[in-house]
Amino acid sequence: MTDVPFTLSALADLGTLARDLPRFDDRAAEAARARQNSLSKPPGSLGRLEELAVFMAGWQGTERLKIARAQALVFAGNHGVCAQGVNPFPQEVTAQMVANFEAGGAAINQLCRANGADLQVIALDLETPTGDITTGPALDEAACLTVFNRGAAAVDPHADVVILGEMGIGNSTIAAALAAAIFGGEVRDWVGPGTGSDGEGLARKIAAIERALARHADLRGNAPAQLAALGGREQAAICGAVLAARMARIPVLLDGFICTAAAAALYGTDPDYLAHCRVGHVSAEPGHRRLLDALGQTPVLDFDMRLGEGSGAALALGILRSALACHNGMATFGEAGVSGG
Amino acid sequence: MTDVPFTLSALADLGTLARDLPRFDDRAAEAARARQNSLSKPPGSLGRLEELAVFMAGWQGTERLKIARAQALVFAGNHGVCAQGVNPFPQEVTAQMVANFEAGGAAINQLCRANGADLQVIALDLETPTGDITTGPALDEAACLTVFNRGAAAVDPHADVVILGEMGIGNSTIAAALAAAIFGGEVRDWVGPGTGSDGEGLARKIAAIERALARHADLRGNAPAQLAALGGREQAAICGAVLAARMARIPVLLDGFICTAAAAALYGTDPDYLAHCRVGHVSAEPGHRRLLDALGQTPVLDFDMRLGEGSGAALALGILRSALACHNGMATFGEAGVSGG
Repeated sequence: MTDVPFTLSALADLGTLARDLPRFDDRAAEAARARQNSLSKPPGSLGRLEELAVFMAGWQGTERLKIARAQALVFAGNHGVCAQGVNPFPQEVTAQMVANFEAGGAAINQLCRANGADLQVIALDLETPTGDITTGPALDEAACLTVFNRGAAAVDPHADVVILGEMGIGNSTIAAALAAAIFGGEVRDWVGPGTGSDGEGLARKIAAIERALARHADLRGNAPAQLAALGGREQAAICGAVLAARMARIPVLLDGFICTAAAAALYGTDPDYLAHCRVGHVSAEPGHRRLLDALGQTPVLDFDMRLGEGSGAALALGILRSALACHNGMATFGEAGVSGG
Repeated sequence: MTDVPFTLSALADLGTLARDLPRFDDRAAEAARARQNSLSKPPGSLGRLEELAVFMAGWQGTERLKIARAQALVFAGNHGVCAQGVNPFPQEVTAQMVANFEAGGAAINQLCRANGADLQVIALDLETPTGDITTGPALDEAACLTVFNRGAAAVDPHADVVILGEMGIGNSTIAAALAAAIFGGEVRDWVGPGTGSDGEGLARKIAAIERALARHADLRGNAPAQLAALGGREQAAICGAVLAARMARIPVLLDGFICTAAAAALYGTDPDYLAHCRVGHVSAEPGHRRLLDALGQTPVLDFDMRLGEGSGAALALGILRSALACHNGMATFGEAGVSGG
């Protein structure tokens, strides 16, 4: 763990940073696996709970796991692409939902309380939407770095796990644009209804994303530049938080389509950037399953949710707590005096 | 809710009891659905969490939900069919695991603590295994009624949800026998490795179940009699607990293959008997998915677990708590001052 805040000074530095990242601790993971096999249950019978415990051990760097502090960070931003009619809700809803988070009335507040996470909501210049990606970049490099570093600075280096979420009217369009830019394929395969686009709204989303991809086609293969040009503030902040967590060896739970697509900009730079991340759930937004396949991620939950806010990640935190409770608290076959261990 | 303990005096009474059961409260469910649609999120965006809240409302008979007391009941029994070499573990392991439960060292202890359930373990005459189902009935009617009523009496009528689990060396054989007897099909399609049967052990399981089904073929279509002849003590106790919970309008979370197969004896009598039950997870034991299909149940979790003990149901309780937290705690669009509600 480090207390030195992590700051990126140029997007291009993302290309070389991967060399110096903390890595999965194979010895701690192996010790955790050995402990799982000694516990008073048939080996493997706790299924994914065992696998999550081993994942946590590798990143926490110890066989004895803890979640004393779970930090939930929800980043909010507004998007110039809303000028293209991609979302039926007015952009004011972003600020209204931030106020709802702050008043404790949103789903993420209840889910953080129920699953033991400390929630922090960070509104990123909501009064100034990013540029419209169909006509220019969302953010220039300096603006992208600023929010990237705000996201990084928000991570508590003493957290035991970090949960990431987002809010931003129009950002399912941004997510589909990022995913299509990084992984290719047909735009329509990455696009879904988001918070409520119907047939015509969906067609507008697809057309807007196709224009944006054509506008920024020269950035192909340069994921950090695509993050700035096609992303948004909450997307860049999520990337900053993911990397800051990695620097401090803190495992991360990503949320749904939008949060995962933001992090995909890191994956597009170097897949190893997301090695310490798991995705809390697979969203009902159809592009998410495709995105998880592209990232090689198996979601913790499949619950037909499509809210964002970090809701699926917070729900998965409860599962992670159960995984740790079994790992730390169970008696071994020997301790329990059970035959056949 | 009733405080009068529910007692069954003849297995045949199961055939008529269904007429007098409390039913799903459509008005409370409708009120819960209306509340979900008014909460500050796109309608339906909490996916299965919304559906679980509506399910709870219908059975708790109120739109405002609570889980102040979650009762976990784990029933343990031993099985005469172990004489057929269906399980590599000695039957002493059942009592050893009960001791482990009582000492707090098993997975179910940790999962109950992590998810807020009060655990009670009920060992059912472990020193006297049931009859070998390949040569005679597991239990005669009187013995079956005795454990059925012990299961019913164990339910706290003031519980807000009941979680059911089991322990019993050899009981994956019993579960496959019950499922095959009630739903038909090839025995091999209902059989899996259980706690560790290999190729030869699996063949012995299949052969034993085929002999048992032939031995009790005259009971076809009589699920209560099949429960006695092909089941076991923990199976009958689970059925008693399911019915007692229903009498008190308490929703039930069933666990994996063995727990679900036990409850299937009620379903085979009248499908309505399981209307207040959800299945906490789909087990890695291959027969479970087939069984869930037969029961028309969608499991809460799919986690590749295969431990029993109520472990999957206890994990699902955490999800249920999150569903209730959102339902009860979220602000409506109006309360939150969010546009578009």
